[in-house]
Amino acid sequence: MHEFDARISGNRGIALKKLRQIGGSICAPHGFRAGAVFCDIKRLGTGKGSEKGRKNDLALIVSDFSAAVAGMFTTNQLRAAPVRLSAKRAALTFARAIVANSGNANACTGARGLRDAEQMCSLAADALHLNKNDVLVCSTGRIGISIPMENVTRGIKACAPLLASSSQNARATADAIMTSDTRRKEVAVEFKIGKSPVRIGGICKGAGMIEPKMTRTGALHATMLAFITSDAAIAPALLKRALGIAVRQSFNCISIDGDMSTNDAVIALANGAAENAKITSAGSESFRDFQRALNLVTLALAKMIVRDGEGATRFVTLRVTGVGSSRDADAVARAIAKSALAKTSWHGGDPNWGRILCAIGYSGAAVNESRVSIGYSSPRQPKIIFGFRCGKPTSTSILQLANIVSGPEFDIHISLDAGTAGTTFYTSDLTEDYVSFNKGDMSDPESLGG
Amino acid sequence: MHEFDARISGNRGIALKKLRQIGGSICAPHGFRAGAVFCDIKRLGTGKGSEKGRKNDLALIVSDFSAAVAGMFTTNQLRAAPVRLSAKRAALTFARAIVANSGNANACTGARGLRDAEQMCSLAADALHLNKNDVLVCSTGRIGISIPMENVTRGIKACAPLLASSSQNARATADAIMTSDTRRKEVAVEFKIGKSPVRIGGICKGAGMIEPKMTRTGALHATMLAFITSDAAIAPALLKRALGIAVRQSFNCISIDGDMSTNDAVIALANGAAENAKITSAGSESFRDFQRALNLVTLALAKMIVRDGEGATRFVTLRVTGVGSSRDADAVARAIAKSALAKTSWHGGDPNWGRILCAIGYSGAAVNESRVSIGYSSPRQPKIIFGFRCGKPTSTSILQLANIVSGPEFDIHISLDAGTAGTTFYTSDLTEDYVSFNKGDMSDPESLGG
Repeated sequence: MHEFDARISGNRGIALKKLRQIGGSICAPHGFRAGAVFCDIKRLGTGKGSEKGRKNDLALIVSDFSAAVAGMFTTNQLRAAPVRLSAKRAALTFARAIVANSGNANACTGARGLRDAEQMCSLAADALHLNKNDVLVCSTGRIGISIPMENVTRGIKACAPLLASSSQNARATADAIMTSDTRRKEVAVEFKIGKSPVRIGGICKGAGMIEPKMTRTGALHATMLAFITSDAAIAPALLKRALGIAVRQSFNCISIDGDMSTNDAVIALANGAAENAKITSAGSESFRDFQRALNLVTLALAKMIVRDGEGATRFVTLRVTGVGSSRDADAVARAIAKSALAKTSWHGGDPNWGRILCAIGYSGAAVNESRVSIGYSSPRQPKIIFGFRCGKPTSTSILQLANIVSGPEFDIHISLDAGTAGTTFYTSDLTEDYVSFNKGDMSDPESLGG
Repeated sequence: MHEFDARISGNRGIALKKLRQIGGSICAPHGFRAGAVFCDIKRLGTGKGSEKGRKNDLALIVSDFSAAVAGMFTTNQLRAAPVRLSAKRAALTFARAIVANSGNANACTGARGLRDAEQMCSLAADALHLNKNDVLVCSTGRIGISIPMENVTRGIKACAPLLASSSQNARATADAIMTSDTRRKEVAVEFKIGKSPVRIGGICKGAGMIEPKMTRTGALHATMLAFITSDAAIAPALLKRALGIAVRQSFNCISIDGDMSTNDAVIALANGAAENAKITSAGSESFRDFQRALNLVTLALAKMIVRDGEGATRFVTLRVTGVGSSRDADAVARAIAKSALAKTSWHGGDPNWGRILCAIGYSGAAVNESRVSIGYSSPRQPKIIFGFRCGKPTSTSILQLANIVSGPEFDIHISLDAGTAGTTFYTSDLTEDYVSFNKGDMSDPESLGG
């Protein structure tokens, strides 16, 4: 896992012996099973099917034991029915299972949408012999079209008997939630709490309509979904706390196209099967170790989403420092990450710090022009080269900066020299391919309204 | 003027006999002269010239009489030196002239930038035998590069003797301020105050980095600039009031790419040469007539900018109604106008109200899903056809809506049914050509940092 290694090498203080990446994802932790089937959810919803759509589209993830549950959900006010329902259930203490589908977001589907989301949980509960309140639901795909419940019903019934704890099943699950994604996204780690080996695994999806801002009670379409499993024994309140912290430094620090979906959700289940001494204090070493591992897992998954951004050719890390407040730091990062002009310039290998300055200026953050600096670095050019320093252009040749920006991955260092707050934010370029991919095609009605 | 006629036909109550469009632009009002020259402002700033850049790039606009002055300027915090200077002078009561250039924005150029902007005013004042405090300055072009004052000096000296009140000179002036614009933007009207014929004329530029939010004290690169002249006799305070109202319903209601420039400025001069009974009361009929004419001129110019949007193939009017507050109405319109996914969908002729719903949901405006309606109309299809009504998709075929959205011009009607506020906002689609135009080209260093 490229993301993962980079992060560890950047934190030399971490005792690597205590944490290592392992194979697999959501089935790596003990006591979890998963599986996926194809039940043609997109076809009936749009009246027409196509061979290209014949990928798995419904998945189940089940914990064999009652698991502490936590969730973070979109803050889009038009949040989808499954988000509304799952946010309620993630606010409880324990849960057992997640039913997830691609092909239909069950968003903007009114009262029927809520009934359908409830029904999906009930169907999964019945098939798995669980209480329906122990099942959460997530959907991604088209919005404003009711989800075809006949297909969902068939899919859940077909999926339940197939569940297994194999990494093959975990991969099938990761594939089932993909929409415009071109790559499967999964990761797992193992570390120790006391003498007990503990595992955290995760899968996620997302490539467009990506600028999540999630909260516990939140509300947001292509959507990002992430499912995290762990066999750690941890108090539900602490799992919720840890997930909030982890999401704020990962999924909430990415933007591909600036569109916040109606369906973004991250759900974590921790079932205690590792039999570690239960984590019950936020001040404990075991909580810190769990938090660190969860941060690594969520950040690795979040970066995979940005790397798979629709049409993207650049992976850009914005390192914002010297800002007056965290809120301002976030505003600066988001303004740059969402600037059509900054993003297109990167696509052409143009450093164009002028467009970055412009975005800083309208971000709303407090800024003094004479103190602003903008520099560039990359894995092959780790020393920061400034294009603009302390309010003035440097004498650095634009071609030297362009060499960095024409690579597939680079960092932009922005300092306002106005305080001590900062943030690290991940984004991509804006390309002709993004536009081509997302524009409809009237000759193919199937492509419209997607 | 297409824009202009459309607006009038939409206001049947207006006594057309009192207001008519006339030829020309800023030199149509009596007592104004203008002119432009080429002095190669871009060449020296970047160390390389090209034949394609040999268009006029410096202009002067002069009133033969002391004129009431008003200005609205970018709210970007990193506002350019000429904006800082002109905002101060527009806060005074009277002025005589404007010096404007393209090719260099004189933005993010530190203390030298401010001295250069002052110097431009002084040079123009000397050449025109005016007081330097009576001269305002506007610049547009690259940012972060000091403006080549030798060229500017040569240009101002060459331009001053050429000034004339011909429409040819007005056109040359409109051309001189163009950057990525593909079309000249100019308009003029005549109406009566009492028995006196009064004229208002205007020119503007802008095609990218367009989402102006201007105030009187404001602070924003491709930039929008507009210069309005009138021979009305009007109290300076009322000209400022009228310009504020006019800009809020025109230039502040457009977005091409969502990037607010460091240089946006609108400057109005009214010199009293029409010898009308001076407008001295905001409650007077003459003020209302002046306001209406100014609104028409600014709206016509603002729409020309959107129609000339970089790479744009659609002119989209967002008609937002039933919103709880004006602030929310503005938030809804801007969220849709800035959504990369909504804008790309239009490019393909895809109505995709799902993406519009998504943008409404994250706009921050108070919204109740079950009350939202989204409809489409166009000049050839004036009846509104709803795709989503009162929280539910309609049975309208997506192809019927796609027929509207695949045209060059259409309206999207958004009602939240949550209040009485609303707004009308103008925007364009996001196309592959926008990306191609704005990405740099490393094989042509001249294209970088633009």
